[in-house]
Amino acid sequence: MLFQTQIDLKMRVITKVKEMQKVADELRKEGKIIGVVPTMGYLHEGHLSLIRIAKEKSDVVITTIFVNPLQFAPNEDYDKYPRDLERDVKLAQSAGCDIIFHPSVEEMYPENFLTYVEVEKLTKVLEGEFRPTHFRGVTTVVAKLFNITKPHIAVFGQKDAQQALIIKQMVRDLNFDIEIIVAPIVRESDGLAMSSRNVYLSESERKDATVLYQSLKLAEKLIEESERNSGVIISKMEELIKSKPTAKIDYIAIVDPNTLEKVENLSEGKEYLIALAVRIGSTRLIDNTLVKI
Amino acid sequence: MLFQTQIDLKMRVITKVKEMQKVADELRKEGKIIGVVPTMGYLHEGHLSLIRIAKEKSDVVITTIFVNPLQFAPNEDYDKYPRDLERDVKLAQSAGCDIIFHPSVEEMYPENFLTYVEVEKLTKVLEGEFRPTHFRGVTTVVAKLFNITKPHIAVFGQKDAQQALIIKQMVRDLNFDIEIIVAPIVRESDGLAMSSRNVYLSESERKDATVLYQSLKLAEKLIEESERNSGVIISKMEELIKSKPTAKIDYIAIVDPNTLEKVENLSEGKEYLIALAVRIGSTRLIDNTLVKI
Repeated sequence: MLFQTQIDLKMRVITKVKEMQKVADELRKEGKIIGVVPTMGYLHEGHLSLIRIAKEKSDVVITTIFVNPLQFAPNEDYDKYPRDLERDVKLAQSAGCDIIFHPSVEEMYPENFLTYVEVEKLTKVLEGEFRPTHFRGVTTVVAKLFNITKPHIAVFGQKDAQQALIIKQMVRDLNFDIEIIVAPIVRESDGLAMSSRNVYLSESERKDATVLYQSLKLAEKLIEESERNSGVIISKMEELIKSKPTAKIDYIAIVDPNTLEKVENLSEGKEYLIALAVRIGSTRLIDNTLVKI
Repeated sequence: MLFQTQIDLKMRVITKVKEMQKVADELRKEGKIIGVVPTMGYLHEGHLSLIRIAKEKSDVVITTIFVNPLQFAPNEDYDKYPRDLERDVKLAQSAGCDIIFHPSVEEMYPENFLTYVEVEKLTKVLEGEFRPTHFRGVTTVVAKLFNITKPHIAVFGQKDAQQALIIKQMVRDLNFDIEIIVAPIVRESDGLAMSSRNVYLSESERKDATVLYQSLKLAEKLIEESERNSGVIISKMEELIKSKPTAKIDYIAIVDPNTLEKVENLSEGKEYLIALAVRIGSTRLIDNTLVKI
């Protein structure tokens, strides 16, 4: 508890768009470099690593905490998504965050909201096949958050590899003058990728959930042992995952990390993204690894 | 010719996105207010009025000159759209413009361009019915131009009333921190609204083209005389326009100026937008008027 009492709990939490823009303008006029870390809150060590990276690269770190309804489908977990602002404020501050932007849904999506940012192609595969409106929600809210926090740099996690790629594409195409940094996945000691959704898992599901990471390690090992056929690698991953009673696979894919196009045979000297989504009970988890052949 | 020689023809013309962003950043750091006037060039008195308004409201006026392929359908006039940069530079400067941003198509839409900004509902009616991908092209390029020129204010013409409304909606929804100013239509002495496309008209078509304005004046007169039924007003406008041999009506509509929803019966105290699109020969012209009852 000593640790917590050392933290100034009066870190600035801004809830209004206009105020955030004004603060960002002032910071920029003072010559400060602004780094933003967009999150949906319920921060874990993964988020904190993003904040630390932002802090290294900028003078002022803004963490946005907003559970964005636009990126959830009606059947998804928007309502039960975990929220704990007080805890988030403390954790963010401990990692070096200077300002929290935490708007209401009404502040972000006032009545008669009609505008969407959409990235084609990259949003239709992998996650996009299972969550067809998800990335439209992500790019729209991130475009808004960029216009609200006016950052020089923004940090995203490689855990959401497809999201990071889509954001980079949006930034390039719409000429946002922002450097996008993608930070490595942070894992629990048994390999499970950190995720706010991990709290949904029961004790036995939590054990089964390690199979995502184990299947990625298996793929890496097979490739290390010179397997070059994606079909073979994916079958062996499937076999391993299916050994867990609570696991149901949405997809496993080996793709070009820039185009997300599926690759049948792996070539020397190239890099590939191995990505998967698995439901453990009713909790949908994703994970991925980048493999250089 | 004396007039032209007085103008410094070395006004800064920037063609690269990164350079424009750097210049905009520097201006903002110096505390300068940036005003932008997005155009497709071939400037006329209408554009110049926008530049003059921008100059009144800001320290530095950037005029963007870019014939945006994304807002033309394949069957439209992208290729033949009139272009004359040298003339535009002189005219813009004479009106108070400080910087021209004039990128190439490749600079704005590099290979593998995938991101679009789309406003729903407002883009589906009036012009949107006849040009289904037009406004997606407009909002996408304007979002880009805003991120490139980083303005505090932007000036658009009421001539494109639907476009101005859609831009305002985009700015509100995506939280662009930019004030949008909509400037009145500038007309030729016989009432024809200024448009770069007027150069397409033959001598006889040019005469017939005044019928757009005449029909709007007729509508205003009918309303002045207490006509409140949109159907009656529109029929009389149609009748007048059809009296011109080269004219073909795309639409005439009386709508709510904020929602663009059609209105059957006009109510006291309210404002309405009367908008029309008419093809004169092969040239498609639009015009509109705002009427307060």
